[in-house]
Amino acid sequence: MLSNHLQNGIETAKMAWSRLPNADDEATDAVGIAKKSDESSVESLDYEVIENFAYWEEQAQRGKLYVWYYVVVKWFFALLIGIGTGLAAVFINLSVENFAGWKFELTFWLIQKSYVVGFLVYLLINLVLVYSSVCIITQFAPAAAGSGIPEIKGYLNGVDIHGILLFRTLIGKVFGSIGSVGGGLALGKEGPLVHTGACIASLLGQVTCGCAAGVAAAFRAPVGGVLFALEEVTSWWRSQLMWRVFFTSAVVAVVVRTAMGWCGSGICGHFGSGGFIIWDISGAQDDYSFEELLPMAVIGVIGGLLGALFNQLTFHIAYWRRNFLHKRGNRVKIYEACLVSLITSLISFGLPLLRKCTPCPEYDPKSGIECPRAPGMYGNYVNFYCSKDKEYNDLATLFFNTQDDAIRNLFSAKTSHEFSAQSLLTFLVMFYTLAVVTFGTAVPAGQFVPGIMIGSTYGRLVGIFVVNFYKKLNIEEGTYALLGAASFLGGSMRMTMSLCVIMVEITNNLKLLPLIMLVLLISKAVGDAFNEGLYEEQARLKNIPLLGSRPVYEMRRMTAKEACGRRVISFPRVVKVADVVSILQSNKHNGFPVIDHTRSGETLVIGLMLRSHLLVLLQSKADFQHSPLPSDSRGSRFIRHSLNEFVKPASSKGMSIDDIHLSSDDLEMYIDLAPFLNPSPYIVPEDMSLTKVYNLFRQLGLRHIFVVPRPSHVIGLITRKDLLIEENEDSGTMELQSTSVRARHRDKRLVTSSEESNSERPLLNGLLVRHPSA
Amino acid sequence: MLSNHLQNGIETAKMAWSRLPNADDEATDAVGIAKKSDESSVESLDYEVIENFAYWEEQAQRGKLYVWYYVVVKWFFALLIGIGTGLAAVFINLSVENFAGWKFELTFWLIQKSYVVGFLVYLLINLVLVYSSVCIITQFAPAAAGSGIPEIKGYLNGVDIHGILLFRTLIGKVFGSIGSVGGGLALGKEGPLVHTGACIASLLGQVTCGCAAGVAAAFRAPVGGVLFALEEVTSWWRSQLMWRVFFTSAVVAVVVRTAMGWCGSGICGHFGSGGFIIWDISGAQDDYSFEELLPMAVIGVIGGLLGALFNQLTFHIAYWRRNFLHKRGNRVKIYEACLVSLITSLISFGLPLLRKCTPCPEYDPKSGIECPRAPGMYGNYVNFYCSKDKEYNDLATLFFNTQDDAIRNLFSAKTSHEFSAQSLLTFLVMFYTLAVVTFGTAVPAGQFVPGIMIGSTYGRLVGIFVVNFYKKLNIEEGTYALLGAASFLGGSMRMTMSLCVIMVEITNNLKLLPLIMLVLLISKAVGDAFNEGLYEEQARLKNIPLLGSRPVYEMRRMTAKEACGRRVISFPRVVKVADVVSILQSNKHNGFPVIDHTRSGETLVIGLMLRSHLLVLLQSKADFQHSPLPSDSRGSRFIRHSLNEFVKPASSKGMSIDDIHLSSDDLEMYIDLAPFLNPSPYIVPEDMSLTKVYNLFRQLGLRHIFVVPRPSHVIGLITRKDLLIEENEDSGTMELQSTSVRARHRDKRLVTSSEESNSERPLLNGLLVRHPSA
Repeated sequence: MLSNHLQNGIETAKMAWSRLPNADDEATDAVGIAKKSDESSVESLDYEVIENFAYWEEQAQRGKLYVWYYVVVKWFFALLIGIGTGLAAVFINLSVENFAGWKFELTFWLIQKSYVVGFLVYLLINLVLVYSSVCIITQFAPAAAGSGIPEIKGYLNGVDIHGILLFRTLIGKVFGSIGSVGGGLALGKEGPLVHTGACIASLLGQVTCGCAAGVAAAFRAPVGGVLFALEEVTSWWRSQLMWRVFFTSAVVAVVVRTAMGWCGSGICGHFGSGGFIIWDISGAQDDYSFEELLPMAVIGVIGGLLGALFNQLTFHIAYWRRNFLHKRGNRVKIYEACLVSLITSLISFGLPLLRKCTPCPEYDPKSGIECPRAPGMYGNYVNFYCSKDKEYNDLATLFFNTQDDAIRNLFSAKTSHEFSAQSLLTFLVMFYTLAVVTFGTAVPAGQFVPGIMIGSTYGRLVGIFVVNFYKKLNIEEGTYALLGAASFLGGSMRMTMSLCVIMVEITNNLKLLPLIMLVLLISKAVGDAFNEGLYEEQARLKNIPLLGSRPVYEMRRMTAKEACGRRVISFPRVVKVADVVSILQSNKHNGFPVIDHTRSGETLVIGLMLRSHLLVLLQSKADFQHSPLPSDSRGSRFIRHSLNEFVKPASSKGMSIDDIHLSSDDLEMYIDLAPFLNPSPYIVPEDMSLTKVYNLFRQLGLRHIFVVPRPSHVIGLITRKDLLIEENEDSGTMELQSTSVRARHRDKRLVTSSEESNSERPLLNGLLVRHPSA
Repeated sequence: MLSNHLQNGIETAKMAWSRLPNADDEATDAVGIAKKSDESSVESLDYEVIENFAYWEEQAQRGKLYVWYYVVVKWFFALLIGIGTGLAAVFINLSVENFAGWKFELTFWLIQKSYVVGFLVYLLINLVLVYSSVCIITQFAPAAAGSGIPEIKGYLNGVDIHGILLFRTLIGKVFGSIGSVGGGLALGKEGPLVHTGACIASLLGQVTCGCAAGVAAAFRAPVGGVLFALEEVTSWWRSQLMWRVFFTSAVVAVVVRTAMGWCGSGICGHFGSGGFIIWDISGAQDDYSFEELLPMAVIGVIGGLLGALFNQLTFHIAYWRRNFLHKRGNRVKIYEACLVSLITSLISFGLPLLRKCTPCPEYDPKSGIECPRAPGMYGNYVNFYCSKDKEYNDLATLFFNTQDDAIRNLFSAKTSHEFSAQSLLTFLVMFYTLAVVTFGTAVPAGQFVPGIMIGSTYGRLVGIFVVNFYKKLNIEEGTYALLGAASFLGGSMRMTMSLCVIMVEITNNLKLLPLIMLVLLISKAVGDAFNEGLYEEQARLKNIPLLGSRPVYEMRRMTAKEACGRRVISFPRVVKVADVVSILQSNKHNGFPVIDHTRSGETLVIGLMLRSHLLVLLQSKADFQHSPLPSDSRGSRFIRHSLNEFVKPASSKGMSIDDIHLSSDDLEMYIDLAPFLNPSPYIVPEDMSLTKVYNLFRQLGLRHIFVVPRPSHVIGLITRKDLLIEENEDSGTMELQSTSVRARHRDKRLVTSSEESNSERPLLNGLLVRHPSA
């Protein structure tokens, strides 16, 4: 044993890490319960947690019961997240529907007397609602502006944006979106609901569940929610998580359904007649002929083009806002939002006034749709500024309505010829412009509903031509509106399967699935030819570094060595406090290799030390020692910290080295890093293709990879059969199916000695022979 | 430059690998087009392909167009798979429905004259069908027996089972399942359809797509198909693949729908009235009260218990069959299947004879269900061996029917009190026994439909009690039957989300989703307390080594070093042919490290050489050389093989060393392995926790990992920011968002020299400075 202390160091670290009851993936659960981290967060995947030795030792003894306890707690939290998100969604919808309902009721009542008074009141109500929303955001919760989806994506991709999951943000998001959506702006509440769900879930440490719950609540689409979380949000996934996420989504669906059933008797005011987007078009065409595929493909192309244009325009406007307008302070943000509100009110009230009314069609008892609709009701055929009773204003049917109702009208079946091509075109141009301008104001804003609005407008426009051209009875304009909506969302957000399922779930019609797929396929392909998806563009704008699902082409020509540009700063195992402080001050690296020396002078990498853990050690001072020699690693006296101290809070800036003040005596002391380091970070040889490194990094959700020299020899080769160890519930021993580990254990000494032909590292030999006893 | 030849070796290999146009993940696509590998197969993930240098060089120059070509081809193949699987499903259903239809028509006609003659004819037809099925399997396609799902799971998990994806197996599966299902055995055609889809897809190199297509075709459930492939089958996934899989599933849905529309006019015989399981229960209850949750939970528990029992019984019987009965040869298998057929016929014909008929209920114009059903029709209320006209035999309604129709009857709404508890119980016991006994006979056999049968029987039984107990009008026994079916499948197969979605899709009713989830959650939890899922149990029985989604508990206490038991055999870079042959003969390893020596005597691992590639080299002899010195690696003269030679066919045993015969002259020659090896396999340090190694192995779908000594120093650290390289379409240069690689390129020499404090490996220094020019 040449260098006992080096060996001890590795041993110590290894013991500490391996004694975690679920060292590699459930350390995170304990953290989840401590409400401080997220299980899907990359944070936990890199095992950047250190355990309290005695605590875990005790837990490990409790065994099965303990595992069960955690499973139950996890599921209980998933239940709570579902209930919480469902209730938040109901609250938002209830409020929005009531504000909007009162607003339109009052306005319709007033315009019977005077259009000017009606307009002024309408404008004022909108302004107040938007003003309150923008004030909440600017004064109280700045992180709640926008949709929040790019930030959540970033968080689950491993990037922590300041303040994004705070309780304050949750409150701001809920009340802010009530104001902005109730105030009639061209934005939706679906994106903010996803953020809301994530905020609620982050309180309980399961952000992925929250995302899915948000989508499930927004669209009442539990399957769509799971797929959204799977496809769009997380970068890491496993099937156990999927099932829990699905459970959460289903709980949301039950909560929302229960609440709506409860409100069905009319005790919730205007809520119940509108609200949750579920457009049941079961009365629509559920068959299609091959001639229709061409116009549907045209819808797909339009969706791709308009969607890509939308991304491009919003990117540029948001860039300008971010770098010029919003730098001038909160007052500008407030003025801006109010101005947008005024313009929106003006357009939505004013444009229908210019439109001539259309005589009502004959009443069709089959459809049961009245024309004009009864006052105070929702639905098609709005009588607005019409000279006769039996007339309706098709532009007002779209504009002078909540967006949910407008979409319902656009999707409606058995209402052919309700909208004129001219009105649809006017609406399309105006609403598209409004949506682009509104995007990026300092209010909570989703893009789903505006996207559906835009898409269903040109979809219905195409539908009008198809109905006229093919003169078939079973073609419904509403179906084309639905396909248009899918195409615009596909062209803008570039989601695929989740969007498809969401569209199917909100229309409750599985038969349209192939058609929705067709337009999505086309619109996504067309959009991809121009730019990235909306969320990726916005994330780029916000400097959120998202790792895409596949490496870029250039990486094929690069090696691992070429990618790591920073100079690496290593720590020795026992380091002087003053050195730690000066190194932490001199750079911003988050991880440091720890290197120890054998007595023969050789070096050996013994692990990875995190900045955050170093800061904890510096702050507590409990592990400072006078001697520059390693502390004795035998026994369990050496960790004086509890697990929680080392766990990074889910969303915070954490400590900074500047917050730590040490006396000059302290600076002269030493720390033995061995118990606190991660003893086996992932390594890659220096000339590995960067593509491979990228896959490793992303698939495992890592934060640090060591690039090391090519190894001098191979100790062993692990293949599938080596990993087929059967779980044995009764004892700590293990059984192998094809090759017995137990037999191998017996042969260990033999194997080790025969393999270790390279005798340059005697200490490793000793280490490895001794380890099984640990 | 101390050791020019070593450096050249690494360079050569690196160039060869990195010049693959899509070196890291689309090498596999080219292979897919060569129809020889599967893109989700682990095969390709480990990059065990070697490229033809000149060929790829040429391709790389074609650039974008070339990439587009491959994308188009891939999607076209997905389309073909969808069409093929859809047509296969239609063919199977058409045949089964017609055989079964003729059979029942003839039998019903005969029993009007004589029950004995009717029974004998019924028995004979069943026997002939089953006999033909078992003959096809035993004589022609033995790999087509059983459901095939465990084997496909194994294949996508990285284990190649002989013959599982051959064209012969496809034919056997299609015709075999027509016989076995048409012959009235207690098994389904859904599992075999998944296998059929996979076989079709493997012809085009996309097995994952085929699996999803099979499920989509079996249940007309495209979303369920994708989730099935995602959750149950593949061990590796990415969102691009998901979208293509989804596309395939949707194509299947369109093909099936088109075919059924075409058959709607009656030109397909009996097909159209039964067949594809789509049980539209839209007329059923879509609301539930909280009191009902208790009986639903009871259904979940029953499902878990009966499902786990089913797994246990089938495991033991299959074990006995495998190790005793079926070892006696094909004749025993044929006798066995015929015996099972006779018993099944006897029970399904005989038991209803013992049952007293029930008087018909009053005709309800709302439901439109006639009692007894008209002769030659399908539906409820079968008049069989009844003394009066206005009577029906409830046991015959279940037994003397195709399984699809029996399930439709069990699920049917508005037919309360159709079945007596006694009949349901009799049916449950008998059918459960038959299903257990039938499972494992040498015919294609799915477990979905029998599972649904069993589940819906006890579900309906519980439903009868609930209806009687709560006396509410809106409770339908059919809904409970559906929940029962979900619970049994959950308890037996342990699928979660995919099963949930499949159940929703086949019933076309999204409103029951939370209830289905509830019973699934319970039944899976109950079942998991006893044993593993059906497919896992069967895979274990068949010695298919599946890697579970999470590492077993014991791995936490093990290190990488402890797992790799085999003695590692390394090759030098230039190796004598005789040595290669003797090493390949002396062991069965599939991968060998290649180690080179510097002139100073140090060793360096330069890559991984595969057995299969060595065999190709030995067989072709084109790369043999007389000199024991490395061939010159400059220029492109050195690879005389085309890509296809090195690609492993999707399903074959491949070559063996015994097939290769070399002259003594050949044996005296040398091979330079450098151009053919994988230059950077994944490496782990020897004392890394085995849990981490497992995650690496499974998440990246690897086949070999090198276990190496702890590195002596760290060359660099790769973090998220280092991997944020923006794709640049116009040139080969790259841009970085946060830190510029270009700037880094300029500083490379500086960085390299400053980092390389360890100057023990001068050759690496040289290598790395030179590489960017390659």
